[in-house]
Order: sequence, then C-alpha cells, then structure tokens
Amino acid sequence: MILPIKREVCMKILFFGDSITDMRRDKDCQDFLPYSYGTGYAFLVANELLKKDNDLVIYNRGISGNRIVDLYSRIQSDVWDYAPDVLSILIGVNDVWHDIAYNNGVDLKTYEKTYIKIIEETMQKFPQIKIMILEPFLLKAMATITEWERFKKVYKYASVAKKIAKKYGLTFVPLQKKFDKLESQIGTEKALYDGVHPNILGCDLIKGEWLKAYKKL
Amino acid sequence: MILPIKREVCMKILFFGDSITDMRRDKDCQDFLPYSYGTGYAFLVANELLKKDNDLVIYNRGISGNRIVDLYSRIQSDVWDYAPDVLSILIGVNDVWHDIAYNNGVDLKTYEKTYIKIIEETMQKFPQIKIMILEPFLLKAMATITEWERFKKVYKYASVAKKIAKKYGLTFVPLQKKFDKLESQIGTEKALYDGVHPNILGCDLIKGEWLKAYKKL
Repeated sequence: MILPIKREVCMKILFFGDSITDMRRDKDCQDFLPYSYGTGYAFLVANELLKKDNDLVIYNRGISGNRIVDLYSRIQSDVWDYAPDVLSILIGVNDVWHDIAYNNGVDLKTYEKTYIKIIEETMQKFPQIKIMILEPFLLKAMATITEWERFKKVYKYASVAKKIAKKYGLTFVPLQKKFDKLESQIGTEKALYDGVHPNILGCDLIKGEWLKAYKKL
Repeated sequence: MILPIKREVCMKILFFGDSITDMRRDKDCQDFLPYSYGTGYAFLVANELLKKDNDLVIYNRGISGNRIVDLYSRIQSDVWDYAPDVLSILIGVNDVWHDIAYNNGVDLKTYEKTYIKIIEETMQKFPQIKIMILEPFLLKAMATITEWERFKKVYKYASVAKKIAKKYGLTFVPLQKKFDKLESQIGTEKALYDGVHPNILGCDLIKGEWLKAYKKL
C-alpha cells in the first residue's frame, strides 16, 4: 500500500460506502491516479469536479460488501485521518442483503443508531465538515428478485437515511425515484445490472444527482 | 472468462490498444458491465455515447504493454470476431518504450508495415468499417525523463500513424498538441501522471477529442 498524499491546503472530498462506491477501484495505488476511483460514480464525479478545480483532492473509500457497522469500524483510518471537507456516504443495501444471504445483516434499529454515531462523532471532530447522505436504492432484478419481500426492506433503510439527514441538517441525495424512472426508460439491467449495482447509465445518474446536490452545499 | 454477448443488430464500437486504453479494466467480466471499461477514456466515452443511444455495444480490448505486433497477433479474436462498426486504435508508445526498457521494441519500419497490415486486412474483411486512429503521445515525466532522447522517437511513430490515416482516408485523432497545451495549463502529472499514462484530466482530454472526431465519422 502506497501512503496517501495529504495535501492539507487543498479542498478534500471523500466517498465512503460499499461496492456501489468501490466499483472495483484499485486499493493499492495512489489516490490521485484514475485507478483509485473505480469504474463508478466516484470516477465520473471526480472527472467533472477536477475539470473545474484541478487542485481538489478526492478519495474513494468504498469497500465492497460493507454494511453500516463496517463503515463505523473503519471511520478513523478511512475518514477522520483524511480530515475531508466534504464527506459523501452511501450505505444500506448490504445491511439487508447480508441478512438474506449470510444471516449477517444489520437490523433497522442498529442501522439508525450506527449511522447517527457516524454523523455525530464526525460532526463533533470536524464542525465545518459538509456531509452528503445518498439514498440507498434497489430494483427487482437478478440478485434481488428472489426474496424480494425481504429485499425491499432497503426502502425502509432509505427512509431512515433520509430522516437522519433531515435531523442533522445534512444534504440528502434522493436516488430511488430517479432509478425507478430510469428503469422505465431503459430497462432494469441498464440501470442496475443485478438490481443493486449500477450499470454505466446508473453510474451517470448518481453522478448527476450528486453534482446537483453538491452545487447547493 | 464469460462469453461476450454478440448482439448483431446493434451498432458496435471497439477500442483497441495498450495500457492507455486498458486502464486496468476487468478482463473477466461481461462487456456491458462498467468494470469492463477500465478507468480511462473508454469508460468516459462509453458513458457519453450510451446516454445518447443505450443500445450501443462498446468493447474495450486494450491490453497493457501491447505494441503494434501484439495488436496484430490478437486481431482475429479481439477485433474481427466482433465485427465492429467502428474500430478505434491507439498504439505506439510501447513500441519505443519496450526497446528502451526490455530490448523488445518494434522499429519504425515494422510499426508502419504492421499498422498497414492491420488496416488493410480489416478493411478487406469489413469494407463498411470506420476506423479511427488516435495519435500516440508522450510528455517528459517520471517514466520518460531518463532516456528522453530515445523516448521522444514516439513522435516519429505518431507521424507514421497520421500518415497511414491519411493514406487510407481514416479518421485521425490528434492528441500530442492537446497534451502539450494541457501540460502548460495544469502541469505534467495531472495530464499524464508518468509521462505516458493519462491522469483523470488526460482521460477527459482523450474523451473530448475522440467524441469530436466520432461526430464527423
């Protein structure tokens, strides 16, 4: 692992989340290299933002399979140590999925409590930080069509994420309705190829909504 | 390896080249997944094109380290078998680099002859195909600063690529002067991080020039 470059004078943005943020990024290369962003919305957002300000420092700290408790477990080394100016969080689908697939999920109450711990502790350490909470989303497809009744609990987790954003005055980025609309236009698999992970146009959707919200920060 | 989906009715675009095209793409996943494009210009181009026509089929067949002779060696299975409507080629820097680093380069005459074989044989098999030749480029940085006198032979290979495009009436995408300009604006490493491989804004530059040329096809 190459040590990250910490350029304290620059504005820093950090993406925190699961596989939807990770998108097979290279975790062993330096953070300013394209490979470090993965082939997802983080790369597309980085591309747009760097065109406007090439001094921005952008970190992708998504890790495939993560649930809210996994984010909390690595918040010191993967978030706080970087002292980001903007923290973008997308988490929730694995909290449900891992319950169905591995009997290792996170119940709604623990999701809420742990999310609140992440927010409160981060705001306490960095009073000036701007936090963006992205809405977890889901469509009915390959990975989710069986056990759909259990899978769609993700929508409840999304409501909790929205409630937390409101409570703490954070920026909420709504995505589910946008994905429903995109699905009606281009079909499920071109939006979320398995019902969970974005295909290229799904990545582009998140990028667009993210940038819209970012401009209002 | 998952077999590629061959949807014969759709318009197909294929990117052929070395690491600059590869950009650590996942070579074991299906071609319509984001991971198959790598974190480079192919992903950014795919993103733009699919927004306009989500039925497009786009293949990335860049392989890191490739020289012109490597492209020729795999042209049947990686290009012709897909019968692309548009073939985009970017190759040349390793023909010089591998001479310097491994005594395994490709001299200018062989580069020209092999490039012509690729073009002529492809045009013969697919008379309607549209071929785009991207200009190989180079800046003086980490990977190229020693042995610069030998490295800058890449510019001669670029001239040959341009000459071939002209001779066969193909679309040529000029890049070197654009990279020189970008370097003067943002510094070398933010354009080509090691003098050879594009950083995010370098990927964006190639995407922009590629799309400009593509519109005129």
